[in-house]
Amino acid sequence: MGYIKNPMMIENKSFEIIQGIIDEIRPDYKFKNDLEEKIIKRAIHTTADFEYLDILKISEIAVEKISNALKNKATIYTDTNMALSGINKRKLDALGCKYKCFVSDEEVAKLAKEKGITRSMAAVEVASKEEGKKVFVLGNAPTALYKVIEMHNTKQLEVEAVVGVPVGFVGAEESKEALEKTDIPFIISKGRKGGSNLAAAIINAILYAM
Amino acid sequence: MGYIKNPMMIENKSFEIIQGIIDEIRPDYKFKNDLEEKIIKRAIHTTADFEYLDILKISEIAVEKISNALKNKATIYTDTNMALSGINKRKLDALGCKYKCFVSDEEVAKLAKEKGITRSMAAVEVASKEEGKKVFVLGNAPTALYKVIEMHNTKQLEVEAVVGVPVGFVGAEESKEALEKTDIPFIISKGRKGGSNLAAAIINAILYAM
Repeated sequence: MGYIKNPMMIENKSFEIIQGIIDEIRPDYKFKNDLEEKIIKRAIHTTADFEYLDILKISEIAVEKISNALKNKATIYTDTNMALSGINKRKLDALGCKYKCFVSDEEVAKLAKEKGITRSMAAVEVASKEEGKKVFVLGNAPTALYKVIEMHNTKQLEVEAVVGVPVGFVGAEESKEALEKTDIPFIISKGRKGGSNLAAAIINAILYAM
Repeated sequence: MGYIKNPMMIENKSFEIIQGIIDEIRPDYKFKNDLEEKIIKRAIHTTADFEYLDILKISEIAVEKISNALKNKATIYTDTNMALSGINKRKLDALGCKYKCFVSDEEVAKLAKEKGITRSMAAVEVASKEEGKKVFVLGNAPTALYKVIEMHNTKQLEVEAVVGVPVGFVGAEESKEALEKTDIPFIISKGRKGGSNLAAAIINAILYAM
């Protein structure tokens, strides 16, 4: 069968097609800057969903903060193994960054049970005790995002930035609105949409632009 | 903060909200049967995208075939580690099923290089040599899906069913259309949408219904 088999060609062609569709459906659409364009286009590349033209919101210094953190051997904490799987670990290894998802750890399960909280929340508590710069990449659990906000507000957690794109129907939208109201640099998806795949794609877009 | 912290409550509430939204936006919408309802609703749960009411297409015997395969210790082969991460492995372990993603294996990288094909395609070739019933769960790589179809058509591969939901702009839609034309039992997402998260959600919906 005559299909394109070269991964780099597939990717380049995809981004051309994405721009072509934007030109067609939203001729007046303007990206704020080059980095925002790269992030939003990669979100669309991952989801085939052009709603991300309107619902991805990037706070002013978020990309700079994340880039700097990654240049300074930050640790990325994800709420799901799925988000962790999607992140380009070769790039992170090359930068000397670490990447962790605690949600399936025994310690976290025990802590969650003791405190009557979700494992996603317990994972944030465990992360908070680690050394070094922290970037949270959350695509699934509003409870994790709320926990990051709570611990930041009560000065129990120092966080460089949050990619906060939980998807879903209970708390997802509200948790992202709560993040917007903090002084934490953020990248969010407004409304219900988001996901682990999107969370990973956003971090990858920043890694590829560095 | 007063948010719901019980994961089971969050899930049940989510499905209630999803039904409420369907009642509102598509009052005449009818699911074909209980299993299709469960799969489509879980697709929406994972993506917050109600387009899946219309674009998820399940061939007549696909769910039965996948359920039977899983009851008979089939192996699930995914095209990405992300899809593999999202699948409920506790359920698969309990059934004695195996689950594999070969895409990052050294043998696969070597084979891909030798043959000038994608690693996703090489992974299908490696899978084809294994014993036992096979279900392919593909959320990303049209080339993997094309390869499954090719090897099935040329009788180099026996496959029980394919969850074929590659997302994207180059080949994704066409690969799914090609799958529809075979006699392989399939679950697909029409058009460009899909993804590793969706692929995992579909298998999980079937696992939870078993």
